[in-house]
Amino acid sequence: MYELGVVYRNIHRADRIAADALQHFGAATVHEAQGRVGLLKPYMRPIQHGVAVSGTAVTVLLQPGDNWMLHVAAEQIQEGDLVIAGVTAECTDGYFGDLLATSFKARGARALIIDAGVRDVRTLNEMGFPVWSKCISAKGTIKATLGSVNIPVVCAGALVHPGDVIVADDDGVVCVPAATAARTLEAAAAREANEGAKRDKFAAGVLGLDLYKMREPLAQAGLRYID
Amino acid sequence: MYELGVVYRNIHRADRIAADALQHFGAATVHEAQGRVGLLKPYMRPIQHGVAVSGTAVTVLLQPGDNWMLHVAAEQIQEGDLVIAGVTAECTDGYFGDLLATSFKARGARALIIDAGVRDVRTLNEMGFPVWSKCISAKGTIKATLGSVNIPVVCAGALVHPGDVIVADDDGVVCVPAATAARTLEAAAAREANEGAKRDKFAAGVLGLDLYKMREPLAQAGLRYID
Amino acid sequence: MYELGVVYRNIHRADRIAADALQHFGAATVHEAQGRVGLLKPYMRPIQHGVAVSGTAVTVLLQPGDNWMLHVAAEQIQEGDLVIAGVTAECTDGYFGDLLATSFKARGARALIIDAGVRDVRTLNEMGFPVWSKCISAKGTIKATLGSVNIPVVCAGALVHPGDVIVADDDGVVCVPAATAARTLEAAAAREANEGAKRDKFAAGVLGLDLYKMREPLAQAGLRYID
Amino acid sequence: MYELGVVYRNIHRADRIAADALQHFGAATVHEAQGRVGLLKPYMRPIQHGVAVSGTAVTVLLQPGDNWMLHVAAEQIQEGDLVIAGVTAECTDGYFGDLLATSFKARGARALIIDAGVRDVRTLNEMGFPVWSKCISAKGTIKATLGSVNIPVVCAGALVHPGDVIVADDDGVVCVPAATAARTLEAAAAREANEGAKRDKFAAGVLGLDLYKMREPLAQAGLRYID
Amino acid sequence: MYELGVVYRNIHRADRIAADALQHFGAATVHEAQGRVGLLKPYMRPIQHGVAVSGTAVTVLLQPGDNWMLHVAAEQIQEGDLVIAGVTAECTDGYFGDLLATSFKARGARALIIDAGVRDVRTLNEMGFPVWSKCISAKGTIKATLGSVNIPVVCAGALVHPGDVIVADDDGVVCVPAATAARTLEAAAAREANEGAKRDKFAAGVLGLDLYKMREPLAQAGLRYID
Amino acid sequence: MYELGVVYRNIHRADRIAADALQHFGAATVHEAQGRVGLLKPYMRPIQHGVAVSGTAVTVLLQPGDNWMLHVAAEQIQEGDLVIAGVTAECTDGYFGDLLATSFKARGARALIIDAGVRDVRTLNEMGFPVWSKCISAKGTIKATLGSVNIPVVCAGALVHPGDVIVADDDGVVCVPAATAARTLEAAAAREANEGAKRDKFAAGVLGLDLYKMREPLAQAGLRYID
Repeated sequence: MYELGVVYRNIHRADRIAADALQHFGAATVHEAQGRVGLLKPYMRPIQHGVAVSGTAVTVLLQPGDNWMLHVAAEQIQEGDLVIAGVTAECTDGYFGDLLATSFKARGARALIIDAGVRDVRTLNEMGFPVWSKCISAKGTIKATLGSVNIPVVCAGALVHPGDVIVADDDGVVCVPAATAARTLEAAAAREANEGAKRDKFAAGVLGLDLYKMREPLAQAGLRYID
Repeated sequence: MYELGVVYRNIHRADRIAADALQHFGAATVHEAQGRVGLLKPYMRPIQHGVAVSGTAVTVLLQPGDNWMLHVAAEQIQEGDLVIAGVTAECTDGYFGDLLATSFKARGARALIIDAGVRDVRTLNEMGFPVWSKCISAKGTIKATLGSVNIPVVCAGALVHPGDVIVADDDGVVCVPAATAARTLEAAAAREANEGAKRDKFAAGVLGLDLYKMREPLAQAGLRYID
Repeated sequence: MYELGVVYRNIHRADRIAADALQHFGAATVHEAQGRVGLLKPYMRPIQHGVAVSGTAVTVLLQPGDNWMLHVAAEQIQEGDLVIAGVTAECTDGYFGDLLATSFKARGARALIIDAGVRDVRTLNEMGFPVWSKCISAKGTIKATLGSVNIPVVCAGALVHPGDVIVADDDGVVCVPAATAARTLEAAAAREANEGAKRDKFAAGVLGLDLYKMREPLAQAGLRYID
Repeated sequence: MYELGVVYRNIHRADRIAADALQHFGAATVHEAQGRVGLLKPYMRPIQHGVAVSGTAVTVLLQPGDNWMLHVAAEQIQEGDLVIAGVTAECTDGYFGDLLATSFKARGARALIIDAGVRDVRTLNEMGFPVWSKCISAKGTIKATLGSVNIPVVCAGALVHPGDVIVADDDGVVCVPAATAARTLEAAAAREANEGAKRDKFAAGVLGLDLYKMREPLAQAGLRYID
Repeated sequence: MYELGVVYRNIHRADRIAADALQHFGAATVHEAQGRVGLLKPYMRPIQHGVAVSGTAVTVLLQPGDNWMLHVAAEQIQEGDLVIAGVTAECTDGYFGDLLATSFKARGARALIIDAGVRDVRTLNEMGFPVWSKCISAKGTIKATLGSVNIPVVCAGALVHPGDVIVADDDGVVCVPAATAARTLEAAAAREANEGAKRDKFAAGVLGLDLYKMREPLAQAGLRYID
Repeated sequence: MYELGVVYRNIHRADRIAADALQHFGAATVHEAQGRVGLLKPYMRPIQHGVAVSGTAVTVLLQPGDNWMLHVAAEQIQEGDLVIAGVTAECTDGYFGDLLATSFKARGARALIIDAGVRDVRTLNEMGFPVWSKCISAKGTIKATLGSVNIPVVCAGALVHPGDVIVADDDGVVCVPAATAARTLEAAAAREANEGAKRDKFAAGVLGLDLYKMREPLAQAGLRYID
């Protein structure tokens, strides 16, 4: 459950090098590399195509229909952060538009991940400010009720602590805990090194059946071929 | 409830200058400017990117799986109109394709807003005919049952009267009553003038906390900063 | 109900000429041409824009969270096929990414149609490998449980037999039985020939009311015009 | 679009005898009797089983997460009314619980129909106060923003004017305009009289094929029987 | 894909004893017993509580908003059958009410399973006619377009052949192919015999960890206990 | 993000008196009493009617389609606990049936709250074992992959720590942190004491407008009455 009305100013951010390097591997590889946990639900979709980011999380807890705490969060952003926002109840309102994006960008934010709606999406795309959201809505919000900044939040079903690494691209959004970012980076790099060689073999027509030596386990599982 | 089987030929269209000018401000600003009412539900999405339109509404009430009344509506279109279609029951069929789009365009229609599906979307995009719809479906419709044209209709949860102004862009679709179009235009223009100056300040790194003088109300609401 | 653990190696593929030619007409026209049956549900969406394909179906039945049988299916692909995959239970996982796409492409597959999720979508689009899917998800799958290849499968509510023709574009995905492919091609061609002339008339401002001689049936159905 | 911040005190209520008598026929028959219009979307479900009501509508327009106007509406309730509530945006909050139900009941209200959530449902059922709603949620609401009472509202996709008759039972909710309530009552009664005789014949094993003389039209439509 | 406009009069029904006996075991056990295939999607819900049925399938393919073929199907019902209905497109209309239920019951039908809506649900429950459906809707249907009876149909994502056994209860609906009904009955009985003994042990406080000898495989999988 | 493969044996359970007493107040009052946080999403619904429970949480993290950890959790249950289960990905399978319910009950569990499906619901209701779940499904699960027990889990969008109090009834499910359970109990009791008096006044016909002194703030907000 959430602590309301607090802003934690000093958070432990994940190692900068790992946080930046994870972007290269993408959400799918990073999700595998850390044992298939930490994925936000697939309804979180990018408003742009072909963009990949990673960064350290400034977390925000919002109230339904109220974006007050996004302004509070703006002050806590440091170069290399991105903002990840949960809401205390289901809401599809457009919490974030071009003015806040201008502010976030000026403060050094790399992206917004929000479990609600955004608006001004054409301008956001023109500005090149990346957003992953639940929906798009022209409906604005008010500024009346406190939430919190930099507490652990649930966003699209995933638990995110302030300072965790967030990796987001066209495939979705993954949270990597600060404590394991370096280890996950290593695992992701090992995975990817391994994939390059496979890709060449697949392109040459080699089958996964042979490359992964699946024929025997398939036969043992009882697979029958019928002519 | 709906009157079936009628076509109102003489409708009171909103002031042309206001109807045209509102397009410039977009759905989000117009929605704010008229007090946060009149927004169609956010499941209404454009089939194209980056297009903004506004125009006066020719309304159509359709029956499920039946696009007969879209042909009846075509005759009522005047230069500067767009067509906004509700359905008497949930339906995902593709009511509208390239032939009807050709006809609508030839009659002067600027767009279609439909609480159902459309098809031939690649051709519609090539033709540059803008559509906002609930879904896309290859399934066609029949021509068997009467609905109505230019009666008040509910489209995606919003009530639209014939002649109202519709403003649609990537953020969604808003209905502005004919009677208040000029006043809403004024309010939208005032809002936007105000936003330009803010954008510059945000870009320079000024925080919303300071620009909107939020620090005191936040403290009064009980916000605590923890180092 | 499904037979599990079998691979049918010899399937009767639809006539190649019909299978290839149907791509030209698109899902909407083909769906009409065969009497409005065979459409997959409209939640099946392309991960790319503006691509149309047709081909003969290699069918796969998958288990939830398990893509083992996609590797088994790869071996059964022939030039001109596409792969169409059903799942025994609801699943949003990302079953298919760039490695399998490389393999499928090398084997001659034209596309994948899958009633589940895919990943690596940016790479898939760069490779030009077309996919229609229920969703996009970074979550990978395991290889542990048998399904089947080239049995009749249900995909997005439609029944597909191995060797049937699948036609897919921005409007959706349609299945054409192998036995009626040639007849459907003929009907589609007749439909389209008919549409060209209509398009010119609509573009010239002729109304559907007149072109389709609807005024009398509308009056008989009781339509009233009110000035 | 909606007029905000107004309460119409004098509304034209539908004829009392028709408003009360329509309850007997139920939502399905009434919907048919008035030509298949006026049905609220089927996501509107009763919180109780086996209850049927009809009454004259006091309409309320609510803001998301704010039930202030339900208190304003309470004062406008007369014996024989029910309250029907739309919301300006999607919301699942629990707007209405046992206290408001006690108040509504004391004022003579027969039911609440609300395009949002309710709570205290066990108590509401014990009190015997009927509710049809979009969902059930323990989340309460605030009292901060004006809506309106007794303006035309959209509820679950249907347009309702104050004073219209609402008929609700296990099958759903239908709106009958005040002006046509008497005529619809007559049509419903005629329909039902007709159904009693049919029910006996069906119970005796007579087929609809024969009772409705469908065999010939089915044959003409091309139906083939295969032994 | 579907064959339209045909009624197969002579279908091969599953063994009567197996078809009747499977009811005793329920959907969950039967689904397990046949290897976890054949389950209709979980959105198919009963309109009544605590009822379990099994029977041989008379299949119907319906058109959206059109229940004509349910009348055609009625004639094909024999004692011990139930009717299972698919639709060629998504539809939530109320296809079936008390009149058709009276007819179906008089013909010997045990239940209706329909991938669409039904109405008159209070009366259906009073009559004791069991129904599993996608939704409940007061909206009626027309009788205008041919479907088919006793062809293979897809219902809620599952393929059903005429004569297959359908088992339905509060947990959902399962299809058992006629050819394997006897074998599945045997497997279900074996499963259940096995469960009785387990239940007693669980009730006595024995843990599944010990009963199923899970401690070692859990330790091997790496499970760590932390005090 | 989640730690996988661990079972914490010693958890700090909330004060027993508070944990038990909160059941009396119900989810709606408790949610208000702790400041409108901690509510699970409203899609979590009881499989029974009219049951209210509260207890201390044994948390479980499950893998999709795999209920192995429910058996591990059973051993950690103490008298007065209930089990609350999250899943690492969306899943509708039936994880829990009568055998596990027998085991849980024998261990002293009061209920199961699960962000997935359950089965054997008729038997569960007959046994009187309360369940709140996302859905009901006959589909069973396997026992192959580790999750964790008694780590913080996300269930239906809410973060739950082991030992927290869970309050569940027909209105939904609320999580109360162990540390604030006593304080929340006090606030809930104060709230309810206050409501009794109000209920009597509402029953006597007093309006909320007068009881809550809303007439002046409504007028100040601009509410206009029109006769």
